Amino acid sequence: MSAPAFTPFDGDYEARVRESFARQPFMTTMGAQLGAVAPGRVELVLPFADHLTQQHGFFHGGAIGAVADTAGGYAAFSLFPADATVLTVEYKINIMAPGRGERLVAVGEVVRSGRTLTIARVEVYGETGTTRTHCATATQTLMCLVGRADTRA
Amino acid sequence: MSAPAFTPFDGDYEARVRESFARQPFMTTMGAQLGAVAPGRVELVLPFADHLTQQHGFFHGGAIGAVADTAGGYAAFSLFPADATVLTVEYKINIMAPGRGERLVAVGEVVRSGRTLTIARVEVYGETGTTRTHCATATQTLMCLVGRADTRA
Amino acid sequence: MSAPAFTPFDGDYEARVRESFARQPFMTTMGAQLGAVAPGRVELVLPFADHLTQQHGFFHGGAIGAVADTAGGYAAFSLFPADATVLTVEYKINIMAPGRGERLVAVGEVVRSGRTLTIARVEVYGETGTTRTHCATATQTLMCLVGRADTRA
Amino acid sequence: MSAPAFTPFDGDYEARVRESFARQPFMTTMGAQLGAVAPGRVELVLPFADHLTQQHGFFHGGAIGAVADTAGGYAAFSLFPADATVLTVEYKINIMAPGRGERLVAVGEVVRSGRTLTIARVEVYGETGTTRTHCATATQTLMCLVGRADTRA
Repeated sequence: MSAPAFTPFDGDYEARVRESFARQPFMTTMGAQLGAVAPGRVELVLPFADHLTQQHGFFHGGAIGAVADTAGGYAAFSLFPADATVLTVEYKINIMAPGRGERLVAVGEVVRSGRTLTIARVEVYGETGTTRTHCATATQTLMCLVGRADTRA
Repeated sequence: MSAPAFTPFDGDYEARVRESFARQPFMTTMGAQLGAVAPGRVELVLPFADHLTQQHGFFHGGAIGAVADTAGGYAAFSLFPADATVLTVEYKINIMAPGRGERLVAVGEVVRSGRTLTIARVEVYGETGTTRTHCATATQTLMCLVGRADTRA
Repeated sequence: MSAPAFTPFDGDYEARVRESFARQPFMTTMGAQLGAVAPGRVELVLPFADHLTQQHGFFHGGAIGAVADTAGGYAAFSLFPADATVLTVEYKINIMAPGRGERLVAVGEVVRSGRTLTIARVEVYGETGTTRTHCATATQTLMCLVGRADTRA
Repeated sequence: MSAPAFTPFDGDYEARVRESFARQPFMTTMGAQLGAVAPGRVELVLPFADHLTQQHGFFHGGAIGAVADTAGGYAAFSLFPADATVLTVEYKINIMAPGRGERLVAVGEVVRSGRTLTIARVEVYGETGTTRTHCATATQTLMCLVGRADTRA
């Protein structure tokens, strides 16, 4: 399935996504970086670091889930109006292979964009050089809160 | 629903859980601590810290998911034989309220313990003083790998 | 976890649930019956019948999912205002044991009741005489559509 | 994402899938039919019928889940050895649009094929003439039981 093409509500969607992402301290803690940002599609890159691992030395399942949640959340957010914020309602992730490689790449894509709810899918890959292993697949439900600032109260 | 009572395979289950948890660098990065450990039931406590937040200043959804994944994983692990390790097959989490409070408390309980697969449920609460808000509910499928060390290769 | 006590919006919630359930032809096809109905809690009973089975002669996983979806949906609906209808946003079900017995009993309970979204949990049991086996556990997200009739357009 | 190409274990996979499907009385009850069967990919078609509906006259969410579960299950089964059967461990389905149309088409594809566990994704469409609406998306975990007959005991 290829992602449907979306027309963003807000022409400044990319700046809005990048600026909001920069205000997520947990992503800074993890060392995650935004990759490509398109309407309804956001990539996240998480370079390998020992502080992200579990007891086998692989990326922790919770770290895999965190980048999946964030990639899908910003894919949704990219289609929202300028005065809205995003909430994760739920996500479900299947971890299909150990999280290993030089980096994780999480690709979030909107599957359905509704007025209140958005459904996103996220694929997470372990990448070393140009070799990718499909590590995890997630689906996510997100809520658009219009008129609520995407910042601290 | 109260958790069924389980008889652990391995009498040293608590030491095994605590020792494995201590070898998860990502949990150290987050500042998560093990609470009570019983057969098929593990509590995790995550004190609030700014480095765990999202753009509204609440616990990041990925951090909520990470403690849920870990609490459920160790609840399963507590029932495994001594020579086994645990893999998360999948988890699904509904975030029902913003992650806020002095700490998150994640309570993982085994619902069904099978030879290969274990199903766990996790409730995550935001706690301030003695007041708890139900923040998230998760279900999780875990795999028991017998004869594989719970350490780096 | 015991279900929190809920105060229904609409004093006639039970009649509304029973009347709506009676208008679901798929439940009639399956032979499902409503059991106890309380605010935020609905039981469904599905007597065993060969036409509900899969290739091993047990209740089909799709039938287990269908009664879970319905029990959780009506648990949510019982708390809605009188002029609203319910939509399933998503559900996730772990089938922990084969669906076998004289009947399935699905118990849906609201975990969180919000203005727009409701989260329910459903436990499905295989029952023979008074012996219950825990067959499946599900979580579900439901949407309240106010001002839309719970009938055919 | 397009499905990876799989080499089936068993050259007779298609006959095995069709023969097993024919032994699922619940699918007969619903009126579901097998469409195309390829290694790791199975299509199911469910013609609209009033006995499959909910209170608004659309396909019941439980019927949507049932065809999704079955399409994904047989996609997995198509890659199993000849002497194995399949169990659904769990599935999660997002219903993104009302189930409406002349028929539902469920397309199940294996995402990862492991020795014990297989992960499948299922897309469900409502179809009228040649017009398709994306109705639901599901992910599913399936278990391969080798040496256990795919029939009644």
